[in-house]
Amino acid sequence: MYNFTINFEPRSKKPLYEQLYEYIAAQIRENCLSENERMPSKKSLSAHLGISVNTVETAYEILVQEGFLRSVARSGFYVRHVERGVSGKSILIEEEKPKKESYRADFRTNAVDTDSFPYSTWVKLSKEVMYENPDLLNAGEVKGDYELRENIAKYLHELRGVNCSPRQVIVGAGIEYLLMLLIELLGSGRRYAVENPGYGKIERIFKNNGFDVSYIDLDEHGLSVEELERSSADTVYITPSHQFPTGIIMPFDRRAELLSWADRSDGRYIIEDDYNSEFNFSKRPITALQGMNSEKVIYLNTFSRVLAPSIRIAYMVLPQKLLALYEERFSNYSSTVPRFEQHTLSRFIAENYLSRHLNRVKNIYRKRRDALMAAFLSCGADVKISGEKAGLHLLCSLSRAKSVSEALRRRGIKLYDCDDYYFTRQEKTHDTLIAGYAGVSLDDIEYLGKTLRAVSG
Amino acid sequence: MYNFTINFEPRSKKPLYEQLYEYIAAQIRENCLSENERMPSKKSLSAHLGISVNTVETAYEILVQEGFLRSVARSGFYVRHVERGVSGKSILIEEEKPKKESYRADFRTNAVDTDSFPYSTWVKLSKEVMYENPDLLNAGEVKGDYELRENIAKYLHELRGVNCSPRQVIVGAGIEYLLMLLIELLGSGRRYAVENPGYGKIERIFKNNGFDVSYIDLDEHGLSVEELERSSADTVYITPSHQFPTGIIMPFDRRAELLSWADRSDGRYIIEDDYNSEFNFSKRPITALQGMNSEKVIYLNTFSRVLAPSIRIAYMVLPQKLLALYEERFSNYSSTVPRFEQHTLSRFIAENYLSRHLNRVKNIYRKRRDALMAAFLSCGADVKISGEKAGLHLLCSLSRAKSVSEALRRRGIKLYDCDDYYFTRQEKTHDTLIAGYAGVSLDDIEYLGKTLRAVSG
Repeated sequence: MYNFTINFEPRSKKPLYEQLYEYIAAQIRENCLSENERMPSKKSLSAHLGISVNTVETAYEILVQEGFLRSVARSGFYVRHVERGVSGKSILIEEEKPKKESYRADFRTNAVDTDSFPYSTWVKLSKEVMYENPDLLNAGEVKGDYELRENIAKYLHELRGVNCSPRQVIVGAGIEYLLMLLIELLGSGRRYAVENPGYGKIERIFKNNGFDVSYIDLDEHGLSVEELERSSADTVYITPSHQFPTGIIMPFDRRAELLSWADRSDGRYIIEDDYNSEFNFSKRPITALQGMNSEKVIYLNTFSRVLAPSIRIAYMVLPQKLLALYEERFSNYSSTVPRFEQHTLSRFIAENYLSRHLNRVKNIYRKRRDALMAAFLSCGADVKISGEKAGLHLLCSLSRAKSVSEALRRRGIKLYDCDDYYFTRQEKTHDTLIAGYAGVSLDDIEYLGKTLRAVSG
Repeated sequence: MYNFTINFEPRSKKPLYEQLYEYIAAQIRENCLSENERMPSKKSLSAHLGISVNTVETAYEILVQEGFLRSVARSGFYVRHVERGVSGKSILIEEEKPKKESYRADFRTNAVDTDSFPYSTWVKLSKEVMYENPDLLNAGEVKGDYELRENIAKYLHELRGVNCSPRQVIVGAGIEYLLMLLIELLGSGRRYAVENPGYGKIERIFKNNGFDVSYIDLDEHGLSVEELERSSADTVYITPSHQFPTGIIMPFDRRAELLSWADRSDGRYIIEDDYNSEFNFSKRPITALQGMNSEKVIYLNTFSRVLAPSIRIAYMVLPQKLLALYEERFSNYSSTVPRFEQHTLSRFIAENYLSRHLNRVKNIYRKRRDALMAAFLSCGADVKISGEKAGLHLLCSLSRAKSVSEALRRRGIKLYDCDDYYFTRQEKTHDTLIAGYAGVSLDDIEYLGKTLRAVSG
């Protein structure tokens, strides 16, 4: 027992008992102390090491608690068998920070113009919200706080013709999260349909939740309702305001046709992802499907494009029937959106900052779109632009698109291939490029134009 | 056709074409214009109303787009049949703001001390983060940004003995969300077990996802492993650091027994919800189960108690096997936590604000706990305190607890009934009250003590 040679570090932030605990635990793990060996008494160890009995007592207590020693009444402390891996000491596994590829101009579809983000207003409102009401630190309403839901309901009503009360609005941290909730609500035994081509991550969510998915082809008006009818799907996910990725705006007739498909059977639902509807460049965007039939349509949208993707606030409008189920089953969940952000956004909408911001960025985006179209149309090759009537990306078809895109990539310009968004294996034509214009500058677009003329002329 | 009497409001923010559109749409909906009726030509209507042809043209375009008119080439515009409910005009359903019940002193278990929230540091770091890197507005890493995951891994290693690399850490907007992901990862065909009594919302999540749940009773050391073995469950959710709601700290032996249960079959997993482990009032909390076996334990925790429930940042540490599956299936999801918050928290940890904050609130909470125990112990009735060794609530058993609690409620004091946390129907004893002390002041506790003496003395 008097082999214990421990160098205490008195100036360490670690208390002495902790240092003693660590020393003995290491001795036991490294088999310097054998199983069932009796430990020195607290008094004798304290005398040996020149520390207080209390310190030894605390260290022994922890060693018992952690399973290194067992205490036998009126006898003392004995070393326990410690299994490999079952130890208080753990190793932090270090790892390299992953590197991201970067481009001079990345025309991805999910970026926003960071320069026009209303920093000073956002910071001002955040501070107001934070200091005004400390109770915002505690948990809020499951659906999101009422003020925000009310402002969203008004905003949706005015801008998109959505028919709803704040009660039907569920605020959540992103479309994916809301879709996960919705899938739980809609229950098992469903068959989901998605647009083909479409959003990979939406299909993923259905699949990750164990559902089969039907892929419905598009024609020039968007999702084919005939094909939908032929599939066995009862729930269809669509992006009617600016189909992703083709940019088709579903016309009124097709919408009516789709709604009548939903009306033909009780369990049928349409999930309307109204993303990019705020960036319609025609005089007046078509009203949301939800406004045409609020019992068959579940409306989804997000502030990712309107404000910033990293501000995780999306919302869903539930039909009354699903709302009742939601209130029954989800009432003890917690909201996924920080309350400070909720109230900041709520004021941002109520005090008209949002509509002003939208007008501002819409002008910026319209200019970029026009410049991008000009860049493609003047490149010397025979091109066809589509999906340009709404934001924030457009498509450009041209022959040799694949090699053009490859040549651009080598010059630091990243465009995307429409074929990558198809779910079914089919002949890849590689003739259509996708270019998002929200995250690039007019200079980037000019650089694209110049480079395009050089590589495709 | 010359019945059109429309009063334009020239000073309205609404453009003339929009006013004209709305007027005609209303006429059609109200059947003032009948189906297939021919509309006046653009030219004649413009002359009649004294507005430009362009204005009429735009209004007609929108009416066609919205399905109110159809355009027949070389003939003109005709009124379409509009179905009830299929209209561009929507009604915003107004609703009363719901009222919340409020108490003078609510001893709920999920509150925090809002006064000690580090406002100025948080605001300072938030501003730094926001202005330093505009690209934080765009989408970040699915798992949460690397910096934060690295800081969480270090924090967990130091504080809880968790063995993990940043790669294994998944950051998400709350425990519930992470559990939803985990359920998708673990797949169908599982049977989950929960502690009884336990967290209602956790059980809810399993049920909402279509799973049967086994309820495992507790003894004085926490979840009974014998009962777990007898159930057909393969995945168990536990709160070993401070069992919710009983406050039992699972001792080392029971932990080892539980790990050996998990080791006996390939598909078995332990979900360790380590909530409240930061508020252990003994000298040294027991290491996390994850540190004892990182392949069988999925570690979950949140900053809700450490910082504030409304800051929605939780995290999960995945075993390597599940991590591989996660990376395969979830790589195109989006993170649910705003990046500004992620980086604010990341700095808050890295610059040692978190450890200082924790020390500070731990002292505050310890004082409240001591005062609360004193209030119960001096009330004149025969009481037994339990669950007090860790935060942030404790239990008090006494006879006539139900009537005492009712008397307190009438005086503005809300305590909770332990029986409400049982999942299985059993004889309700109503003899144990639960009192959270993080969200109440020392004054509130004193008021409780005084009132208790009055009602139970």
